[in-house]
Amino acid sequence: MLFDVQGTATDFFTTVTSDAVRIDLGRNPGLNWDDFVNRWRVAYFAAVAATPTPAGTWTSVHSIYRRTLDALLDEAGVEYPDTDREELTLAWQRLIPWPDTVQGLRRLGVRYTLATLSNADVSAVVNLSKRGGLQWDAIFTAEMVGAFKPDPATYSTAARYLGLPHSEIMMVASHKYDIRAAAALGFQTAFVARPLEFGPAAEADTEYDDAFDLNASDFLDLADQLDA
Amino acid sequence: MLFDVQGTATDFFTTVTSDAVRIDLGRNPGLNWDDFVNRWRVAYFAAVAATPTPAGTWTSVHSIYRRTLDALLDEAGVEYPDTDREELTLAWQRLIPWPDTVQGLRRLGVRYTLATLSNADVSAVVNLSKRGGLQWDAIFTAEMVGAFKPDPATYSTAARYLGLPHSEIMMVASHKYDIRAAAALGFQTAFVARPLEFGPAAEADTEYDDAFDLNASDFLDLADQLDA
Repeated sequence: MLFDVQGTATDFFTTVTSDAVRIDLGRNPGLNWDDFVNRWRVAYFAAVAATPTPAGTWTSVHSIYRRTLDALLDEAGVEYPDTDREELTLAWQRLIPWPDTVQGLRRLGVRYTLATLSNADVSAVVNLSKRGGLQWDAIFTAEMVGAFKPDPATYSTAARYLGLPHSEIMMVASHKYDIRAAAALGFQTAFVARPLEFGPAAEADTEYDDAFDLNASDFLDLADQLDA
Repeated sequence: MLFDVQGTATDFFTTVTSDAVRIDLGRNPGLNWDDFVNRWRVAYFAAVAATPTPAGTWTSVHSIYRRTLDALLDEAGVEYPDTDREELTLAWQRLIPWPDTVQGLRRLGVRYTLATLSNADVSAVVNLSKRGGLQWDAIFTAEMVGAFKPDPATYSTAARYLGLPHSEIMMVASHKYDIRAAAALGFQTAFVARPLEFGPAAEADTEYDDAFDLNASDFLDLADQLDA
């Protein structure tokens, strides 16, 4: 089983908004951090999609988060020193698991081989997994492939590393573009609804779809459905 | 901390000889499997060293083990069907941990980030780690780099993935060529003596050397020395 990490296994909204409030220390009382963090995530998505990945070069996701943060802070007129900007960017390496994630992975791991397939940097996935107690059998990320999801190379490289045909691997994500890309390559798919992905005020796409092999409300529900 | 796997963390001699006896079922009573397995390991080493790794291509270690097995079986006049040859080659994906490995890694893992740096295929390291209960924070292998140890690219790529300078990473191995190659790149080094690596009748190099940062009798001793 391959898992998306940012949003699917971890709650970036709560992590990054609370880190932002902690780092801001009331210096910018008028700023809506909930909205800011969601705009940051959108800017990150757009930047990743626009980042060329020619062979032999790589742009770290950390640098993309930092660059998009700088632009958003400038836009909001927030003046932070470099140390605060760096500390806030590192929040993406501290993402906390959803309440069901650790136990869900533990149950699924008894029966299945579990690996990440994330666009985040290897170091970010290693750090947040260690900190949050996420027990993966392997960590695969875009950085190892030289291409970002939903590039087909990301999914097929993970399958090659696992030594398994696509049809024996299930891609798990709360983002439909991710599992649709995997499905197009013959992977099995599980959609996990994360209604709070963008916080309580914003709306996430949580609609189940029969096009996926499984639809689950969280990792425990996924484990139930897989008899794990 | 980066760990070599075959020989350092796992006991290939016991695993592969006992699998060979199980698979042979007494068909070749005159064959000395202890000697055979050590010659297989030597042939594997020579083949890996002679395997070109041009960009964009990769020779799986499984195929190297299989090819060298076929040659040795022919040499010994052993006639096995393809299924037995394949099953015996898969023994390298089932390598059992040394008695101290699981507990040693558990102790070290509380304080340090632990990853493999192995020449074995990703799937082999994933499979034997899952089966043996080896809890790594990440699995790095030659296959991900496109070069075999002791190629400098293997060590430096692992460091880049971890986002750490070489000086903050310790390479752990029972093979001196491996930790010497890491030391030449500025990594810290730990030598772990594995006197039974080639079985009770053969001699392994277990001599401590002050050139290494640490010399340990096993992973528990290593944990003791690192206050883990």
